[in-house]
Order: sequence, then structure tokens, then C-alpha cells
Amino acid sequence: MKTLVTGAAGFIGSALVDRLLAAGYTVVGFDNFSTGREWFLQDALRSPGFRLVRGDLVDTAAIVAAMDGVDVVFHLAANADVRFGTNHPTRDLEQNTICTSNVLEAMRITGTKRIVFSSTGSVYGDANVFPTPENAPFPVQTSLYGASKLACEGLISAYCDGFGFTAYIFRFVSILGERYTHGHIYDFYNQLLADPTQLRVLGNGRQRKSYLYVQDCLNAILIALEKAGGKVNVFNLGTDEYCEVNDSISWIVERLGLKPDLEYTGGERGWVGDSPFILLDCKLIRALGWKPSLSIRDGVVRTVNFLTEHPHL
Amino acid sequence: MKTLVTGAAGFIGSALVDRLLAAGYTVVGFDNFSTGREWFLQDALRSPGFRLVRGDLVDTAAIVAAMDGVDVVFHLAANADVRFGTNHPTRDLEQNTICTSNVLEAMRITGTKRIVFSSTGSVYGDANVFPTPENAPFPVQTSLYGASKLACEGLISAYCDGFGFTAYIFRFVSILGERYTHGHIYDFYNQLLADPTQLRVLGNGRQRKSYLYVQDCLNAILIALEKAGGKVNVFNLGTDEYCEVNDSISWIVERLGLKPDLEYTGGERGWVGDSPFILLDCKLIRALGWKPSLSIRDGVVRTVNFLTEHPHL
Repeated sequence: MKTLVTGAAGFIGSALVDRLLAAGYTVVGFDNFSTGREWFLQDALRSPGFRLVRGDLVDTAAIVAAMDGVDVVFHLAANADVRFGTNHPTRDLEQNTICTSNVLEAMRITGTKRIVFSSTGSVYGDANVFPTPENAPFPVQTSLYGASKLACEGLISAYCDGFGFTAYIFRFVSILGERYTHGHIYDFYNQLLADPTQLRVLGNGRQRKSYLYVQDCLNAILIALEKAGGKVNVFNLGTDEYCEVNDSISWIVERLGLKPDLEYTGGERGWVGDSPFILLDCKLIRALGWKPSLSIRDGVVRTVNFLTEHPHL
Repeated sequence: MKTLVTGAAGFIGSALVDRLLAAGYTVVGFDNFSTGREWFLQDALRSPGFRLVRGDLVDTAAIVAAMDGVDVVFHLAANADVRFGTNHPTRDLEQNTICTSNVLEAMRITGTKRIVFSSTGSVYGDANVFPTPENAPFPVQTSLYGASKLACEGLISAYCDGFGFTAYIFRFVSILGERYTHGHIYDFYNQLLADPTQLRVLGNGRQRKSYLYVQDCLNAILIALEKAGGKVNVFNLGTDEYCEVNDSISWIVERLGLKPDLEYTGGERGWVGDSPFILLDCKLIRALGWKPSLSIRDGVVRTVNFLTEHPHL
């Protein structure tokens, strides 16, 4: 099977590339290296089954060229900067929604019919059912990031109906693990690297979040791709537990052997559009035989381990 | 109050312009006349409270210029061609989603905070609850049109959260009445004008649809704008009844005094992405004191009356 991975040099994308190559698939990795890192692909680049394409998803012709002979597209490339959405209000539309339309057009043009898509639990906005199932009440969007991913889901589903595509849409919680290069652990770690005595926390620290280890995330994607039989297959991906930001802080500082003073910016949200509580109902993916191997705590510690081993990040 | 109406020369837009002027509001009408008709604005153009701007929503600077001093934006401009979505797969994204982003950006730039938006019952895809309420289970999109409107809703909601906007989002069934210039009655009427003995019907004629008379639609919008107090106010707009396409045909041919032979293309959907059943739960808007004045049958007949009085359409 020949696959195309967009965002191949990213945190999750590069881990997926390694897994696909290990499973014997041919992989075309597509990335514009706006946030991706070439060294994440250092193993892949030694594999005969891997080809790297430097390109931008704004360029549909470039995607068409890269997609030649591809059976499954894993579309992971995205602007994943949720927090600063209001600083650049059209970026999520441009880099997520429009680029996803371009990927779909390239698939239509090349006759490629299967797409795996990384959506987000943020599409539930401020959910009012916990744990939140895939068929939760029709949500109201609270972030430009969530809105852009919801728009992608809609486009993908409409292409399934209109052009006979099959889609595997995954609504992730935040993903942790090796090659993690943005998010709260990264921010906290870098703050503590600069000043081990102080830590500034956005919000009141009581935000309740769920996290998932990257290899568990990839296990779920590969199991669903093998077993899910629908036209538009939508799965939540997370653990059945949540932690407070304060819990995460305690695990991080314990691992680093630090006791910083904590300063809270206050409020139940860390930033505009932040969800004070995220917990997804993952019964659907579990029904296919998947379960996560790591707890949130183990995922956090493993992420800190990765960051301490790569201080140049 | 100063208002801006996009799609001001369209079927619903021009009727809204007339209503706003009659209520004493100042109105800037914005239209690119791609499908709008200038004679729909012949009354408005005689009013001192009306100014027409010929412009395209792809041009954010033009919207900004037209929006000067505006309090409420009624964003009705859209590609409303649901049926041929798969013939031009990026048009709904370009003309609906991206243009809505441009309208929102113009509002952010000019400090305009209130937006009325014409969404669609198509965002429910193939609903599995009837009548379908606003908080129906998270839907899967089945048309590029519905997907593009859902994307607009998400963008608008995210701007409400991020920039303090207030939104009034209306999910319409199909709207009927004076100045109706596309849709099944228009298609049937024109077929019968060309050959009164034959009528070709898409699907099996058993599709169950709900329709609403345009002035009832506008009544609902104006009541909600006055009474709804939330940040993101979402309302279904429809009647509490539905009819089969075959019912509609019988009312049309009876009004015209014709007995054509009916030819069905077959299948429960008229086209890819057509919903075989649309019936919206309108309790929320009814709770504000609104109710429709015309039945579906009366709306259909009034639409045929309009078409017979304007055969040049």
C-alpha cells in the first residue's frame, strides 16, 4: 500500500511515517517545514520506502504530483496553534480549511479515495456532556482552530458523499510523547529551563484536560483504518481519565526535581477559546479493540524525558 | 440603526431590504449581481435611506468601505446552488465560507459587532431526529453547500467568542414567495412553460420537504434580532409541516390548470446530497412569539402566482 502523509515532519506526522514504514508501507512525506523538523525524519530518510516532498498545501498541483499512485492519504498538516488564533484570525481558515480542500481536490483529480484526518476535541466547543461522545449535541464553536477543523470535517464528509471517498476522522485530545514541540508541557519546560524558581500558569490551573500518548494515538488510527467499515468513520481519541493542569505541573516539577513558585494568570480559561474541561467518550474506538497503553501521568513524564534529552528544542 | 445587507439584490435579500427600509432603518445594499437582479431593488432605490454598493465579497477592502458606521450586518450573500455542488467542488468554499470570513474580518476591522446569518437546514445532513432541533446529534455533512454553511457558522461563533460579536444564525428550510428565482417550483414552472404536457421529476417524488414563506422568514429574523439575548443565537426556521414533492407538484399543476405526464428519475434522493426528509423543530423561534402566516401549500401557490406574473423570469 502506498501512502501520503501531510505534515510528515511534524510531531505526530513523523511518528506516523516511522510506523507506516515499519509496517511495510510505501510513504510519501509532504511538508513545507514551516514547523516540521527534518531530523524527525532522519530514520525515515534512510528507508527505501520513503520519499520526501518539500511542498506547500496551498499548491494543489504540487499535491497532485505527490499523490501519484497513492492509496491512502493521512492528512495531518495543520496550523495547530490554538492559543493565538485571535492574533491572526484567518490563519486557521487558510492553513487548515482551504488546504484541506486542496488535498481533497488533489484526491478527486488523482482518483485517491481514502483519507485519514486529524481533527480535534475542540470541535465540541464548550461541551455540556462528559465524557463527550461523537454524537454529542450539535456544538457551538469557541475557537478559530476548532471552527477550521469542523469545516474540514464537513468538507471531507461531503466529498465522501459526492465523490465516493471513505474517511477516517479522529477527534484528538492533546497528544503527548516523543518529538512533542508545542503545548503546555513544552511551555512549562522552557520556562523552567530559563528560571527554575518561577512558573507562570495561564488560567487558574484547575482546567481539566485529557491527554493521549502519541503511539497510542497511532495505534488507534491504524486499527480504525483496518477495521472501521463506514463511509465517514468518526472517532474520538483520548484516555478515559483527565487531570488538572495543576496535576500535570506537579508531575513535571517532580520529574525535574524543582520546586518553583507558581503564578496564576487567573480565570477558568487559559486563553480565549480555551476549554475548561475536555474529556472524550472513546467507547467507539475501544469497541474496535483499542486501548491506550500509557496513563496521562506516564505520558507527561515520558514527554519531559524527551525534552530533557533534547535541550536544543 | 444603520444596516448592511449582503446579497441585497437576491430573492431574500431584496425582500429584507424593503422590510428594513419600511421599519425606518438605513440600509447599505451590497451585491455583485452574479445572480441578484436590479429590479428587485427598484423600490429600495427610490428610498433616501438606501444606498447600493456594487461589490464582491472576495474584496475585504470593499466590504470595509461599505461597512462604515454600520450597526448590524445581514449576511445573506451566498452560492445557493445546492444541487450542482459536485460540478464545481470549490465554489461553496470560495463564495460561502471564505466570503463569510471576509465579512467577519471587515466587521473586526470596522468594530461592527452584530451579524445575522442565513444558514440552512442542510447542516443537519441526513438527520436522524424529526422534527430536527437545533441541538440535534452532531451531524455528518452530505453536501458541499451544507458543509460550507456549517463552516460559516463555526467561524461566526468563534468570532463571537474571540472578538465579542453577537450572532443570530438562522437555519432555513427552503424559502418560497415573491422574487423566488431558483429551486424546484422555478424548475417545474419553467419545464411546464416549455412543454405543458411533460414534467420530469428528480428522484421518486416522495422526498419530504418543509418550506417557508419569505415574509414569515423575515418576520422571524426581525423578532429574533429584537428579543434573543445570547451571544450566539441559533434558530431553525420552518413550518411545522412538510409535504412530498408530489404534493407540491399537484398544487402547481392545479394552479396552472395543467395535467402533465410525470416522469421520475427515481431513487429517494433528487441528487447527490439531497435530503430525503427535512422537517425542523422550530420551538425556539416560536417561543419568542413568532409563527408562520402561510401554510406550505399557500406559499407554493403564491410562488406560482409570482412566476406567472413575471414570465420574463
